[in-house]
Amino acid sequence: MKVFVLGGDGFCGWPCAVNLAHRGHDVVIVDNLSRRKIDIDLGVESLTPIATIQERLRAWEQVDGRAMRFVHLDIAREYERLLELLRSERPEAIVHFAEQRAAPYSMKTSATKRYTVDNNVNGTHNLLAAIVESGVDVHIVHLGTMGVYGYGSHRGATIPEGYLTVEVPQPDGSRFTEQILHPTNPGSVYHMTKTLDQLLFFYYNKNDSIRITDLHQGIVWGTNTSLTEKDPRLTNRFDYDGDYGTVLNRFLMQAAIGYPLTVHGTGGQTRAFIHIRDSVRCVQLALEHPPTQGEKVKIFNQMTESHRVADLAEKVAALTGARVDRLPNPRNEAIENDLIVDNRCFLELGLQPTTLDDGLLTEVVDVARRWADRCDRSKIPCRSAWTSRQAEAIRTGA
Amino acid sequence: MKVFVLGGDGFCGWPCAVNLAHRGHDVVIVDNLSRRKIDIDLGVESLTPIATIQERLRAWEQVDGRAMRFVHLDIAREYERLLELLRSERPEAIVHFAEQRAAPYSMKTSATKRYTVDNNVNGTHNLLAAIVESGVDVHIVHLGTMGVYGYGSHRGATIPEGYLTVEVPQPDGSRFTEQILHPTNPGSVYHMTKTLDQLLFFYYNKNDSIRITDLHQGIVWGTNTSLTEKDPRLTNRFDYDGDYGTVLNRFLMQAAIGYPLTVHGTGGQTRAFIHIRDSVRCVQLALEHPPTQGEKVKIFNQMTESHRVADLAEKVAALTGARVDRLPNPRNEAIENDLIVDNRCFLELGLQPTTLDDGLLTEVVDVARRWADRCDRSKIPCRSAWTSRQAEAIRTGA
Repeated sequence: MKVFVLGGDGFCGWPCAVNLAHRGHDVVIVDNLSRRKIDIDLGVESLTPIATIQERLRAWEQVDGRAMRFVHLDIAREYERLLELLRSERPEAIVHFAEQRAAPYSMKTSATKRYTVDNNVNGTHNLLAAIVESGVDVHIVHLGTMGVYGYGSHRGATIPEGYLTVEVPQPDGSRFTEQILHPTNPGSVYHMTKTLDQLLFFYYNKNDSIRITDLHQGIVWGTNTSLTEKDPRLTNRFDYDGDYGTVLNRFLMQAAIGYPLTVHGTGGQTRAFIHIRDSVRCVQLALEHPPTQGEKVKIFNQMTESHRVADLAEKVAALTGARVDRLPNPRNEAIENDLIVDNRCFLELGLQPTTLDDGLLTEVVDVARRWADRCDRSKIPCRSAWTSRQAEAIRTGA
Repeated sequence: MKVFVLGGDGFCGWPCAVNLAHRGHDVVIVDNLSRRKIDIDLGVESLTPIATIQERLRAWEQVDGRAMRFVHLDIAREYERLLELLRSERPEAIVHFAEQRAAPYSMKTSATKRYTVDNNVNGTHNLLAAIVESGVDVHIVHLGTMGVYGYGSHRGATIPEGYLTVEVPQPDGSRFTEQILHPTNPGSVYHMTKTLDQLLFFYYNKNDSIRITDLHQGIVWGTNTSLTEKDPRLTNRFDYDGDYGTVLNRFLMQAAIGYPLTVHGTGGQTRAFIHIRDSVRCVQLALEHPPTQGEKVKIFNQMTESHRVADLAEKVAALTGARVDRLPNPRNEAIENDLIVDNRCFLELGLQPTTLDDGLLTEVVDVARRWADRCDRSKIPCRSAWTSRQAEAIRTGA
């Protein structure tokens, strides 16, 4: 199968691309390398040293024998080139990771809010419009987020996979039942863009019958897969900074370098998690089970377990002896929330979840220890604030 | 009250701006004049001859004595100037009409789809980000559309004003009740952008407490208000072409020039309508009743009556003796639909609806007859098609 991986140089995109290539698919990575450039702007680097995309591709061909191609293209800006690429290559599937993916970065300044909206909405919409214009019959697999559902009170209810069945009471006492897109409640400008993506998908699926699978992914932890471990030049990135680092990986890395674990607010926030190996496997499963012609957008919850942030900190502290620091919360969010998630779609397709207790926590600590000297400790604190009230709390430490 | 009217040179924006100025508000029109430029691209003109914005403002000052100001600014492109304008003027309210507003235009080509998404989403988001950055406490009144609810089957249910109360059944037989944003079902890329706006408003209201009223407006008919009639240089625009003309005004204008009334598909499509005078009055009522600090987004259904398209054609035919033509439907939409709409918010605020039977139908026919020689009949047919299947039907007349 010929597959485009948009954003195939990023944290999820790269291990996904090598996995698909290894399974014999003809992979074309399409990326504008924006993630590396944002690191330059922020003055940070992946904790793990990562090779250039060109080196990565050379190494991959040497290691695996199956070459991948790379097209340097900005899908949010270069519509005509994207259209031409679709027309000339006629891919059967497109995995779409090509979005600005960090909530704190999206809340940093007006400029990063605006970039996130402009880049993510136009990127996704260009892709949809180009597919219609090209007439290519292609299955889009899009990386969404669990955050579209929001982290408010779900009243102990289980979050279904994308669609919610509701009853609508009528004034005359009757009621009718309907299946609707689960109402959204994004917690940042970044998350908001993924709720916008949902509506773009809904419309283009309805009007143009584009086949789409939207993956509502939890927070990814871990760094390498068995394939990216095969050569140092294939190593995946590891973000630890306050903008792009995500909670569990940050705790493990903080423990590795003797930095107190940064719990923001009460730690009562409950989030969904998935290991990078499972993320890669889920994308593959989604590709292997495309929607049929005319089927509505498939939505899968791509997560394997839920945890309270404070519990994670405790677990990592117990494992490593690290100290826990309570810090002001830069986010405007519920103090605590429950989160019960239905993920049976992937389980039924054969996913074997990698859980926190499988020894992989230690593996991440080992990776972080190995590259500890590459860490810039000044980049660890979260400095993006959701509102001026939160910014003030960070400044004063209150 | 100091009020910005974004898009204040357009069909709804201009009569709204003069009404607010007449009521003593300090009005600043902000517009990039894109509507006039799109007419140039399409090779059409307003049926009524309209003065330049500069002439309009001179005439207004002579007629009414209350000057309005004009700032030539593209809110989707010139963020820094928008921010500076907010900081220096500190308006108390902003009426936001500054979006590409035609469904057929939005479906014309990939370029117009992409322009509509890029312009509308970035325009609205720039406004929200600039308000946060400026720290100005301002009430946004946004022109949305009834089309966010969609025109599928509502199963005889009444469409509430923005929020729907649903019951969510649980596996254990219990259920909980929740009020959600009414699920959206846009019928074109244009309508889709208004569903995206809704989510932008939801988020910025939640995170930054921006006070917002979203007006879900029906199809506007009529052309002038008592104020724009006061001087020929104040005349409002009248769109009759296949892209920007809307159904009732097109029927009236077609009748006036002896062109068969263009009913697309069965005519069983039911839509909501409002006269331009009521539209102007509703915006004023919304401005006079802002949400309180911390209140969620207010949503009003800005319409006064619903009609089937075929019934409208029959009514206009009866009034004028016009012939009705059945044409292929360029839209990918339900063959017919019901539409029962709750509009009690504006009625309770004192709106006295102007209905189709008030003699104003004849007034529109008179306006159209007066300017009949300005009509380019070749611009009347709808040529934008929703899909290639529809395009084929238009070509073959099938």
